[in-house]
Amino acid sequence: MKDLFADRMSKVPRSFVREILKVTENPDIISFAGGLPNPSSFPSKEIAESTAVVLKDSSDEALQYSSTEGYKPLRNYISDRYSNVGLDVESDNILIINGSQQGLDLIGKVFLNPGDVMLIERPTYLAAIQAFGLYEPDFVSIPLLDDGVDIDVLKNKLDSLHPKLFYSIPNFQNPTGITYSLKKRKEIGEIFNHSNTIFVEDNPYGEIRFMGKDLPPVKSFLENSVLLGSFSKIVSPGMRLGWIVADDEIMKHLITVKQASDLHSNLLTQMIVHHYLTGYNVEKHLKIIRKMYKIQRDCMVAMIKKYFPSDVKYTKPEGGMFLWVILPEGMSSMELFEAAIDENVAFVPGEAFYSEDPQKNTLRLNFSNSDEKKIEEGIKRLGNAIKHLRAKIN
Amino acid sequence: MKDLFADRMSKVPRSFVREILKVTENPDIISFAGGLPNPSSFPSKEIAESTAVVLKDSSDEALQYSSTEGYKPLRNYISDRYSNVGLDVESDNILIINGSQQGLDLIGKVFLNPGDVMLIERPTYLAAIQAFGLYEPDFVSIPLLDDGVDIDVLKNKLDSLHPKLFYSIPNFQNPTGITYSLKKRKEIGEIFNHSNTIFVEDNPYGEIRFMGKDLPPVKSFLENSVLLGSFSKIVSPGMRLGWIVADDEIMKHLITVKQASDLHSNLLTQMIVHHYLTGYNVEKHLKIIRKMYKIQRDCMVAMIKKYFPSDVKYTKPEGGMFLWVILPEGMSSMELFEAAIDENVAFVPGEAFYSEDPQKNTLRLNFSNSDEKKIEEGIKRLGNAIKHLRAKIN
Repeated sequence: MKDLFADRMSKVPRSFVREILKVTENPDIISFAGGLPNPSSFPSKEIAESTAVVLKDSSDEALQYSSTEGYKPLRNYISDRYSNVGLDVESDNILIINGSQQGLDLIGKVFLNPGDVMLIERPTYLAAIQAFGLYEPDFVSIPLLDDGVDIDVLKNKLDSLHPKLFYSIPNFQNPTGITYSLKKRKEIGEIFNHSNTIFVEDNPYGEIRFMGKDLPPVKSFLENSVLLGSFSKIVSPGMRLGWIVADDEIMKHLITVKQASDLHSNLLTQMIVHHYLTGYNVEKHLKIIRKMYKIQRDCMVAMIKKYFPSDVKYTKPEGGMFLWVILPEGMSSMELFEAAIDENVAFVPGEAFYSEDPQKNTLRLNFSNSDEKKIEEGIKRLGNAIKHLRAKIN
Repeated sequence: MKDLFADRMSKVPRSFVREILKVTENPDIISFAGGLPNPSSFPSKEIAESTAVVLKDSSDEALQYSSTEGYKPLRNYISDRYSNVGLDVESDNILIINGSQQGLDLIGKVFLNPGDVMLIERPTYLAAIQAFGLYEPDFVSIPLLDDGVDIDVLKNKLDSLHPKLFYSIPNFQNPTGITYSLKKRKEIGEIFNHSNTIFVEDNPYGEIRFMGKDLPPVKSFLENSVLLGSFSKIVSPGMRLGWIVADDEIMKHLITVKQASDLHSNLLTQMIVHHYLTGYNVEKHLKIIRKMYKIQRDCMVAMIKKYFPSDVKYTKPEGGMFLWVILPEGMSSMELFEAAIDENVAFVPGEAFYSEDPQKNTLRLNFSNSDEKKIEEGIKRLGNAIKHLRAKIN
């Protein structure tokens, strides 16, 4: 039956992370592997109240088929929220999707022919490699520096390869936690506005800045762009709600493929989230999340300093959910993973985040889903695993 | 910017139905165009109660990221329900998706290379043409007879073209309302089990049989098959929940593309629907829907007899939501559509349901979303439109 499957299926990277997450189901293991928000940040009570109101007042609407574009009042809310940060986005240029992940699939479908060049960050979000990879582009990855993508390399590749898309996560990147500086954002605007390449700006973590100053979306500086947003980190990921912002011509195609994909996103959930966002104090809720994640991030940084060998490097993100660790040259995070499981602690080896030629001494740590006690204990265990592995290879 | 879009986008049929549905937003128009369940069939109170329980007892789980495969207890429920109709399906061979529409997209992605031959019914569900069409197969359509697909033509095409897939809706087909006879189901088993073609069995309406005897799924007679199910017609379409049944090898690939598409389906909704299905009398609920739709279907058939010219033909479905009308030779349902809008009544012209060479004198009528009063008045108006058009063209 093998020859029945489409060629694209032979090119999908194995989802290493799925297998990791299975290992970490063991309750003895402290896991920094997943990318889960802290469930104590979920506004459960408010969601329950909102649901009761929606089903009492509007069940015929909420339970019925609906428009592909999404629930208009929710799109208006998103539009208004952008105007608060100086972005002028009409609600007709917003499409509601099943989490921003679905946006990657829809964008791949609308833009990519097999063999098209697509730029990505190096490293990048592994499920983006999977989603776009199914449309069989030639990935070219651009190194990330401390203040964002390497502009010189980027400009060179734009000029020489005329790629269709560049996929970027400018705020608290997954997996590195790196944020693009204001200078880089402006430079990107300058070079992209002279190109025919679409800048795909994925911004799931933007609202979770717990240090430093908010920066304008790269979209502010761009003519051609697609911007992705998500309610997963600010309300709930289980409800699978995100959105795409695009201009009219692109939006027309996105709506076509969204309709073919699943007709429309869950309307009941759209109405619940809209009721929650407009009926409660979301800013207060966001403050609580930010404060919680800052404490956890600070704790993780302090524990790394305390328990890791001093030649291990790591990022110190100003928001989001992840930090990135670079082990000394010659160490493999895949080997460390085995040693770490022996110590009952887990993470994602960096290899998963590269489309080619992985930097094998890297790994991703999630700090959003563990309290201080777990972080201290887990990092201590991981420090032991590093020391054991080092002793073994020396 | 045009050359930025993928080639597949130039092959998508224009969604005529989207435009029709916009016309029918005018409240003066009686619409038989959409494919909406009757909202009075929604178990709103029970859904509200189930939601309250789920959010009270399990909000940390319901609002968090979850597994791609879907909520295990819901998959167990579906598995048990199949065993009631004699189908042995393990829950590991069930994937929860965003309505069965998403299954079409995932199946297209897993199986279709551009240019692969894919068989479809003639006519068939228009959003299937859109979903599969984005994977650029060569569609070959097989005529539908009163008792299901034309087996001789089907066998001939299987033998000569070695298609990857045949997409079929054996129960109360959309758009025709036709159901495959038991004999046809068995014949299909015989010819497919000697082929290398996957039978894709879409069964959104199977539970809504209001006349005649239940028939076994075609899957009962097949070795290679993919079966799609949906909660849209029995609980609520706004919640976008359906499922795919497939064997291990196909399932592995389906899970990969589902994960790349949107990580997983809405968990909160999966848990609500599971609570509803296991905590309430669903059989009683289904009886109410069936009774309601039978009354509406009987009314539509009676009114057609009363108000349409006697040389108009139509199907008399034993379930589902649609019946199919064949106008006298030479009449165009697109022209009738204009005349019908003048009379404030709408339907979907048959052209939308053909991948090529449409039979222009056909049209689809939905009876599930109108009460008897509306059906009588709407069919009367449509009868007038037919008479006006006939007078004009004679």
